[in-house]
Amino acid sequence: MPKDPFVPVVPAGGSGTRLWPLSRRARPKFLLDLTGEGASLLQRTLARLAPLADRAPIVVTGRAHTDEVRAQLGAGDGAADGDASSAADGGALPVRVLAEPSARNSMPAIALAAALVEKEEPRAVIGSFAADHLIEDQEGFARAVAAARDAAELGYLVTLGIEPTSPSTGFGYIEAAGEEAVGEEAAEEGTAEQRAAQALRDVGARPVVRFVEKPDLETAERFVAAGLRWNAGMFVVRASVLLDELAAQIPGLAAGAREIAAAHGTPAEQETLERVWPQLTAIAIDHALAEPLAAQGKVAMVPAAFDWDDVGDFAALARQLRARDAREGAASKAAADGPDEPSGGGGADGSDVRVVGSATIDALSSRATVYGATHRYIALVGLEGISIVDTEDALLVLADDRAQELQTLVGRLDEKGLGRLR
Amino acid sequence: MPKDPFVPVVPAGGSGTRLWPLSRRARPKFLLDLTGEGASLLQRTLARLAPLADRAPIVVTGRAHTDEVRAQLGAGDGAADGDASSAADGGALPVRVLAEPSARNSMPAIALAAALVEKEEPRAVIGSFAADHLIEDQEGFARAVAAARDAAELGYLVTLGIEPTSPSTGFGYIEAAGEEAVGEEAAEEGTAEQRAAQALRDVGARPVVRFVEKPDLETAERFVAAGLRWNAGMFVVRASVLLDELAAQIPGLAAGAREIAAAHGTPAEQETLERVWPQLTAIAIDHALAEPLAAQGKVAMVPAAFDWDDVGDFAALARQLRARDAREGAASKAAADGPDEPSGGGGADGSDVRVVGSATIDALSSRATVYGATHRYIALVGLEGISIVDTEDALLVLADDRAQELQTLVGRLDEKGLGRLR
Repeated sequence: MPKDPFVPVVPAGGSGTRLWPLSRRARPKFLLDLTGEGASLLQRTLARLAPLADRAPIVVTGRAHTDEVRAQLGAGDGAADGDASSAADGGALPVRVLAEPSARNSMPAIALAAALVEKEEPRAVIGSFAADHLIEDQEGFARAVAAARDAAELGYLVTLGIEPTSPSTGFGYIEAAGEEAVGEEAAEEGTAEQRAAQALRDVGARPVVRFVEKPDLETAERFVAAGLRWNAGMFVVRASVLLDELAAQIPGLAAGAREIAAAHGTPAEQETLERVWPQLTAIAIDHALAEPLAAQGKVAMVPAAFDWDDVGDFAALARQLRARDAREGAASKAAADGPDEPSGGGGADGSDVRVVGSATIDALSSRATVYGATHRYIALVGLEGISIVDTEDALLVLADDRAQELQTLVGRLDEKGLGRLR
Repeated sequence: MPKDPFVPVVPAGGSGTRLWPLSRRARPKFLLDLTGEGASLLQRTLARLAPLADRAPIVVTGRAHTDEVRAQLGAGDGAADGDASSAADGGALPVRVLAEPSARNSMPAIALAAALVEKEEPRAVIGSFAADHLIEDQEGFARAVAAARDAAELGYLVTLGIEPTSPSTGFGYIEAAGEEAVGEEAAEEGTAEQRAAQALRDVGARPVVRFVEKPDLETAERFVAAGLRWNAGMFVVRASVLLDELAAQIPGLAAGAREIAAAHGTPAEQETLERVWPQLTAIAIDHALAEPLAAQGKVAMVPAAFDWDDVGDFAALARQLRARDAREGAASKAAADGPDEPSGGGGADGSDVRVVGSATIDALSSRATVYGATHRYIALVGLEGISIVDTEDALLVLADDRAQELQTLVGRLDEKGLGRLR
């Protein structure tokens, strides 16, 4: 059982080109109700974390999004670049919203949150979770976080390893000790190490041998067969451990985060932030900490049993919508499946169309997903694995099996003078 | 060489559900510039016929469309249900626009036009051509019409037989004598018949053995192999012959058309039209005249060499747009084929996208046709044989190879309370 206070940290960033034009620069993925269930991914992330938090969760986001983040989380206005504390979930813990002066990748954002937590409670454990991932199994998530906190209190940087449901080439993988070594011999270690490993196992975690970047399909298939797990980018660690280890890897980054935290809430807050933040190394936590610490045996993995999806493109989103309907069962599906309302699933002609948003549609012989942000009538004939996003200023029609190519097309908007559409 | 005056007749009707939402009840196909060349199908039909006409062409259309037809053809306002004569093409022949009180299929429309022509010049030859078909080869068309007029002056109902470019199951076929009989033995005829057939051959026509309705694919392949031709619904005939033969088939229809024509231009015009028109048998000219007269040896066919398409659905329209680009040659295509402007054809990534209308698009790995009636930006990824119609109140996304199914979907609009979209 974990003993030290737990503070969730939610970096909310990302340009979100892979879900354009649903997501835009001014309205990235985490602000959207992607699945049409009445809550944004950010709101659902905080709702998932709030019951596990001992202190107000910290959301770190860009200045452009702070107003919308605060509005969605019911947080007050607060200082422009400070933190606003308010109730996130009607009587639940308040949420602190930190505004980054500029995007510097995930390590500076998490380090800043860690430094603020460390300043107030040096032994507190933080858990960093992306604002825009989908997890349905709240209980499984809570169990995994509890185990990760136990392991973090042993001094490890702890990551949650997701059980793969397919040999995905879109995610990185985690190799933990006790699994068959893949491509490298497992490290042989001394007795002190073995004792530490046993302590980890006692709390349900295992030492991480290495992190592997997104593999090709053949490698991914070997990884899945060998029991490797997906790296979902979730890290649980004592705030002071994170900063001390970061100080060993990238000293200026740790010192900078601690300098900003020290000035936080003082008259020097704004000046310090504006001066120090731009100097912080823009780097992901995976490269800054997770990979080098894994080589030192300082990273642990908790095998997680909950479902997880980063909803990385329209193909993933289409899968999620269908998986949700499958979970909700045949009974509720049948009720929404009349010939006049194909949004719930299969129609009389075999159509299988999901609708998210305000669109009224009719479909013949089609398997498609429609995101309707206008009130136009949408008619589909003979489509197979197509996603359609209908917004006031842009329309996307995309074959799900080419979903990854979308970012190329969105990348062209600026050079075409259509940056206003991003 | 034909001697009698020639009057083109253009029935302009049709509900146009197969090109919805491009075509609507209030704006059927013939009023549209489907290929984005700056002229509607109706305007292009009249431009094709004007040089061949000895008298003002007659357009017969529904009351709902007369204003737009007159506007497009530069015709004056005229009497509500009478004819308005005006220059169709800047100094060319004027056009007469007749308004049908209600839609009664093609035979009443053509019979009324024939009766008006007959009343003024009994020996005049009329030629009936749909308002919404595409023909590019003006010279070939003119040659075929001249031959058809020769044959019509011999007393025949003359049709133009289009050389098939594929074993289409979407068109009816014409079997003419001298071709191998398909499924039936060729009729054996006496000497007088043989002389008549020779006279026909002397003007480049042949007796028609029979008309065949849309066949299945196997039959269509046999037809094409045996030299049968497509029935494009084009008929050339002396006005008095048409009405006399119609009087033998459906007496009331011929008499009614002649009664309306007799009252035309008199104080009784409107009363007669309103009283008689609703009693006219609603029937297509194929069933009313062409099929029964073919059985009597009174129909001739002129083998036509020009291209023709009825642009019956989005698949046909997509083919036409590509055929047009092929005709216009690689040089002009190349100029429009930069990566920023895929509307002319293949892009750098192999995309082949045609754009008709105002849309700005970008495409990756896509073969598609876009009809953009809004100013939204349209992005396509990974599409294969898709048509997209983007209008203010309705969006269609359709697989070209399922194009015929669209009418089912459009047919549902009324029952769904969305008749305003038709």
